[in-house]
Amino acid sequence: MKADIDQFQTDQWRLSASVSSLELFRNNQTKCDQNQEVAFTASVTSGSSTWNSGTLIFDMAITNTGNGYNPSTGVFTSPISGTYVFYVSAVEYSAQHLAIDIVVNSVSKVRAYGHNAASYQTGTNMVVLKLQKGDSVWVRHYSGKGYHTHPVPITTFSGYLIS
Amino acid sequence: MKADIDQFQTDQWRLSASVSSLELFRNNQTKCDQNQEVAFTASVTSGSSTWNSGTLIFDMAITNTGNGYNPSTGVFTSPISGTYVFYVSAVEYSAQHLAIDIVVNSVSKVRAYGHNAASYQTGTNMVVLKLQKGDSVWVRHYSGKGYHTHPVPITTFSGYLIS
Amino acid sequence: MKADIDQFQTDQWRLSASVSSLELFRNNQTKCDQNQEVAFTASVTSGSSTWNSGTLIFDMAITNTGNGYNPSTGVFTSPISGTYVFYVSAVEYSAQHLAIDIVVNSVSKVRAYGHNAASYQTGTNMVVLKLQKGDSVWVRHYSGKGYHTHPVPITTFSGYLIS
Repeated sequence: MKADIDQFQTDQWRLSASVSSLELFRNNQTKCDQNQEVAFTASVTSGSSTWNSGTLIFDMAITNTGNGYNPSTGVFTSPISGTYVFYVSAVEYSAQHLAIDIVVNSVSKVRAYGHNAASYQTGTNMVVLKLQKGDSVWVRHYSGKGYHTHPVPITTFSGYLIS
Repeated sequence: MKADIDQFQTDQWRLSASVSSLELFRNNQTKCDQNQEVAFTASVTSGSSTWNSGTLIFDMAITNTGNGYNPSTGVFTSPISGTYVFYVSAVEYSAQHLAIDIVVNSVSKVRAYGHNAASYQTGTNMVVLKLQKGDSVWVRHYSGKGYHTHPVPITTFSGYLIS
Repeated sequence: MKADIDQFQTDQWRLSASVSSLELFRNNQTKCDQNQEVAFTASVTSGSSTWNSGTLIFDMAITNTGNGYNPSTGVFTSPISGTYVFYVSAVEYSAQHLAIDIVVNSVSKVRAYGHNAASYQTGTNMVVLKLQKGDSVWVRHYSGKGYHTHPVPITTFSGYLIS
């Protein structure tokens, strides 16, 4: 029986060491993202020669994982805190000029600019942002009017969580 | 006491099995996603004044982690299911007009548009897509002809797995 | 001997609890990257009609998680090895032409091109790169002069770690 108990003790030491190592691993590991997938691209389904204020509503969601983007309002609401990338690409309507901003909770962060020096210039920009859960991001008119698209989307808005 | 010791032995076997399983997990895990890295940028090595149909073949891979992109065919084949970002930027050849699509399994998703109202306009777009393993993504001619580049790539195609 | 066995029992309870906790962790877990967050967007705070050589210094950091980007020098230094995405969008100053490169350790990777066929064209590009810790990435003049912006940034530079 003494031999059995010695063996138990040896086994337990081994287990203790294994568990300690795993706990260290767990502590160095901190976050997991499986449940944190948030990624969208949306587009306008038709062009406009007159749009000149407020939110540019990209009314068709091509991808909307996590359902953060609302194609009825044009507003993305962050479902979780984290670092996100946002991107907009917009072609001006003929030579009407178009300047639009990516805004967070109404504050402009970057601007995409299609100048009327030539028709149908592409304005585009990207911004990396740290968002809190519930922050809102959308594309807002700054100057000019209208935007162009095709049945295959040209004027688009994308966002995705990177960490 | 014999009963107690038998119980200890049973408990230890259970613990041993649990710990082995966790160690296997830890060993397979190292950097969270080491096996899921898929990311490429490819470019054309020379311009064209005549290209006017089919696939735009970006024949030089600048980065091709995971080897999803084939620079001979211009086609990216998804090595694993997941959410990907694709991006194209193309400068039209002189004032020849260029409209190209990012397509998935032959279905157009977004269009980049360089209008002939001025020479050498940049057309560019991005799309976030959920792909199944084996899905194919490429850049396809829609209208216009040719594209411009420099020895340092101007006309490029990128894609990367985000989750 | 009774004392020894009591001790074994106490140790086993502790081990059992540890292993249960680790199993819960393993089940909730799939992927991690808390320590690997590197992501920035920077912009110029004013335009220039004369800039014509060297580094384009984006002197305002909109986001700079991981502090890889230095807004005084315009240089991003990779804090950890990995795969990164870089993106630049620049609007030329009037019709002055602007070609700029994303460079890694002084080697040009991709070029953004705003041609003087029309004023205020946007030049933009993206590149996915595998970097070693300590690699430097910046935006360098190739040809033309000046760049345009607004109080809301139009000319921007972004980068982020994807894996």
